[in-house]
Amino acid sequence: MIELGANRYGKAQIRLVRVVRGPGAHRLRDLTVAIALEGDFTGAHVDGDNTLVVATDTMKNTAYAFAKEHLDGSLETYGRALADHFLAFEQVDGASVSIREHDWSPIATPNGPAPDAFVRAGSGTRVATVVAALGGTMIEAGVEDLVVMKTARSAFSGFPRDQYTTLRDTDDRIMATKVTAIWRYGSPDLASDELHAAVQATLLEVFADHDSPSVQTSIWLMARAILERHEEVAEVRMALPNLHHWLVDLSPFGLENNNEIFIATTEPHGLIEATVRRGEG
Amino acid sequence: MIELGANRYGKAQIRLVRVVRGPGAHRLRDLTVAIALEGDFTGAHVDGDNTLVVATDTMKNTAYAFAKEHLDGSLETYGRALADHFLAFEQVDGASVSIREHDWSPIATPNGPAPDAFVRAGSGTRVATVVAALGGTMIEAGVEDLVVMKTARSAFSGFPRDQYTTLRDTDDRIMATKVTAIWRYGSPDLASDELHAAVQATLLEVFADHDSPSVQTSIWLMARAILERHEEVAEVRMALPNLHHWLVDLSPFGLENNNEIFIATTEPHGLIEATVRRGEG
Amino acid sequence: MIELGANRYGKAQIRLVRVVRGPGAHRLRDLTVAIALEGDFTGAHVDGDNTLVVATDTMKNTAYAFAKEHLDGSLETYGRALADHFLAFEQVDGASVSIREHDWSPIATPNGPAPDAFVRAGSGTRVATVVAALGGTMIEAGVEDLVVMKTARSAFSGFPRDQYTTLRDTDDRIMATKVTAIWRYGSPDLASDELHAAVQATLLEVFADHDSPSVQTSIWLMARAILERHEEVAEVRMALPNLHHWLVDLSPFGLENNNEIFIATTEPHGLIEATVRRGEG
Amino acid sequence: MIELGANRYGKAQIRLVRVVRGPGAHRLRDLTVAIALEGDFTGAHVDGDNTLVVATDTMKNTAYAFAKEHLDGSLETYGRALADHFLAFEQVDGASVSIREHDWSPIATPNGPAPDAFVRAGSGTRVATVVAALGGTMIEAGVEDLVVMKTARSAFSGFPRDQYTTLRDTDDRIMATKVTAIWRYGSPDLASDELHAAVQATLLEVFADHDSPSVQTSIWLMARAILERHEEVAEVRMALPNLHHWLVDLSPFGLENNNEIFIATTEPHGLIEATVRRGEG
Repeated sequence: MIELGANRYGKAQIRLVRVVRGPGAHRLRDLTVAIALEGDFTGAHVDGDNTLVVATDTMKNTAYAFAKEHLDGSLETYGRALADHFLAFEQVDGASVSIREHDWSPIATPNGPAPDAFVRAGSGTRVATVVAALGGTMIEAGVEDLVVMKTARSAFSGFPRDQYTTLRDTDDRIMATKVTAIWRYGSPDLASDELHAAVQATLLEVFADHDSPSVQTSIWLMARAILERHEEVAEVRMALPNLHHWLVDLSPFGLENNNEIFIATTEPHGLIEATVRRGEG
Repeated sequence: MIELGANRYGKAQIRLVRVVRGPGAHRLRDLTVAIALEGDFTGAHVDGDNTLVVATDTMKNTAYAFAKEHLDGSLETYGRALADHFLAFEQVDGASVSIREHDWSPIATPNGPAPDAFVRAGSGTRVATVVAALGGTMIEAGVEDLVVMKTARSAFSGFPRDQYTTLRDTDDRIMATKVTAIWRYGSPDLASDELHAAVQATLLEVFADHDSPSVQTSIWLMARAILERHEEVAEVRMALPNLHHWLVDLSPFGLENNNEIFIATTEPHGLIEATVRRGEG
Repeated sequence: MIELGANRYGKAQIRLVRVVRGPGAHRLRDLTVAIALEGDFTGAHVDGDNTLVVATDTMKNTAYAFAKEHLDGSLETYGRALADHFLAFEQVDGASVSIREHDWSPIATPNGPAPDAFVRAGSGTRVATVVAALGGTMIEAGVEDLVVMKTARSAFSGFPRDQYTTLRDTDDRIMATKVTAIWRYGSPDLASDELHAAVQATLLEVFADHDSPSVQTSIWLMARAILERHEEVAEVRMALPNLHHWLVDLSPFGLENNNEIFIATTEPHGLIEATVRRGEG
Repeated sequence: MIELGANRYGKAQIRLVRVVRGPGAHRLRDLTVAIALEGDFTGAHVDGDNTLVVATDTMKNTAYAFAKEHLDGSLETYGRALADHFLAFEQVDGASVSIREHDWSPIATPNGPAPDAFVRAGSGTRVATVVAALGGTMIEAGVEDLVVMKTARSAFSGFPRDQYTTLRDTDDRIMATKVTAIWRYGSPDLASDELHAAVQATLLEVFADHDSPSVQTSIWLMARAILERHEEVAEVRMALPNLHHWLVDLSPFGLENNNEIFIATTEPHGLIEATVRRGEG
């Protein structure tokens, strides 16, 4: 007996820009949207029966139409409208909408911020995922590709040594990473653009301020601060590559290297992942 | 109460090449390896205590040393040796080793295949994941980035229409996709280089031979054939983007387009995912 | 008779970070360096004679050593020191050093900018190229990957129409582009970090402020302003892809689209390139 | 006086697939096309006058229409038809058409090659550039991203040593590279699909067969062989990164490394470029 297991389908990489033409200045929302549905799709697989298969092209069209009608508020409000729309199809048990927002800043000019010209900002990609199912809705917010570096107050020492260990203890290394942080809100109604910005500011502030004995501890401290300062957040997941910066040995050239000159690398890299959450205690 | 949840860490993007200098010809193994450990790492997070944290640099060294000692057989044998090595650490509850193999072919010359010169082959990236835990070992094998296209015998029609539906039914479209297929072996002892090649050959043969009413059905037919022909396989997961090729409207230029000229696109794309397995029936 | 023509060689993608540990705050320079040499290398090609071939590994080492000794001032000062060093080899006729700088900003915290923690900035990649030859030195500065968008005051109309023309005139479109702008200084002694920032500010200001009838005119206006305001600049080359944002047709869904909702695309794109310079008139 | 210098514009990344539905089997041509024009475009820049600016959207349409009408023969025949078409505009002095072809192979099945199902091939990307100007037409053909490796018969020794040199001489290293080779035909009428395949076969054969004392010599030997064996070719340009594979030091782990285990790297890399041509002697 061969049978169909878990399955889902949808449209990915829907690229859309909304220009909100305000009275004073324009506002940009630049999104990449993905939609995925689960439900009664066994016939589509085993019988070639498409009668229940909402076309992914239809999903794309809906994303554009809803950008017109439902993208006035937060990113999550838009995602939720889309997810609820698809959940209303009888054959759908779960609808997931994932959004990545590409950030733009008004161009600075001598006369102040330009009202209708923008430059891409660099501080990571905002993400939001709405999962609507028959039992309720869950919203995760977060940031990807937030590239940060600490040039002081990062160490790694006291780790175990075996026959394959050559790394030396260090009490002053560079910590460079590309943060992925995803947090789940305690209720889907709590999500907002402002709250997202506040959580990300907490993350960056703790990254800048703490002493790091390891990437593991850095994750713990950032995630714990988010939970302590933002009661709306129920859980934080973080994944931090450790993008090694190796001290160059300048001694063959008669030069000292007092933690000044580093080789920046991307591979191999460490990869540290953890979830921090409110306990039941 | 704030507490640590699931966590793991390791080294990713370890790039290594082994040259097996056989008597007649060389053989290349070109791998990207990732290692991740789970276990007793709460202290590393919440107390900054590294005494149990096997350095990811040590993992990298071990991957290289084991490439010398344990890469004579299948990819999975190497991965299993690595996973078992790390599982033997007392603080480790689970060790996962993921390997991607980059394929090379001997260069064809008038005198036959070159013994020591190679060209990168194009038929996807072989992947293998070994997960060793206290309860046993699980091996998944597969292929990523296997780019294939059907220029006939692909259709999509009979799907439901709502106010956002503009796509027309078609009985002759291009199906282009980049296959990710991951299959789990019923026992970790079954994995071999030969079996991997046989399963991939089945996948490609069915892709070429079947009539497709939808990507969903294509996945079902390929996965079912793998399970039918290869009893070693317990389950197959597939993810297929639908890389749309849109028929160009040449009528403004006074030309007919009899399914000949297409615009190749990558975004947006459909994304169809399913698992097919042996049932309990 | 078969002969060697133009040739050069060097090291590319040398990744280095210098941390300047100032008394108040750290400063980061994060560079990717490429070095290329021309000269008497015929023997290296046709005779397999390496006696004049400075190893590219030596170039890499030199780049790191010079980062310690010569990276206190402008990017161009460092590049020039490297280029002059290699030009001093008897077999070298020309040395080219190309540098890309990856920009970082101090992380904003409630206590002000962090002294030793940084986030990657998004406003393009600064580039500098020093070409040292026996006849003198030439310096080009610039920016790559500066992603900008105008949501108003961009048009394209009045273009010629032939049998293959379907595009309609528009007096209100989005102009999105990824600017590459390279400017040559009248003398290599004029280059500085401050001047680079000032030229880039001019470019952005004009991008924001002008009315654009075409990408061609936008290039002309930006480049002309750079030459008018910065007498140190002798010539500006610009290359602007036109990253089309297509207005979505929402009418099938009963909605109006008043220049609000766009499909962002990357391919195909227009590509407009021009040089603007001081004339001899 | 500020004036416009060299300029050109066009459409890039036009993605098109042509399916040739032959009686026995289908044939695929999968192309990325770029078109660029030079000519009388000063008014477009300095006066905002678009009356001579053939829209890049029109170029795209033309590329699709010509794929229907002129893509029966060689890649270069199609490129030439496009270039000649645009050169016929009165305001155009030069038209350049650059094509990259993505290679597909019929899927192998137990019944032979599939007639209508394909898998992406891995042996580099074919390129062709047609430059049509009032004085005549020039055709360059070539290959990009041809990734090859020699595991024997590659050395690098006898290079000069200075204070920054730490690399040791080696008589047995891996040479791994991603070949870009562009050759110019003596006459545009000589270009053909068959000749392209023959030149690439020569390149690969010499890469496999020669002893390499340096990448420079490898380029010379490959390019010279192309010129010797293919009289249609007037000149060959090659650019080879040296993608270093570093021998892992396994001695800390009590293991020997007899040129077996290597770290594959991509940055930094050497970059060797040379042109080889028929001399006038």
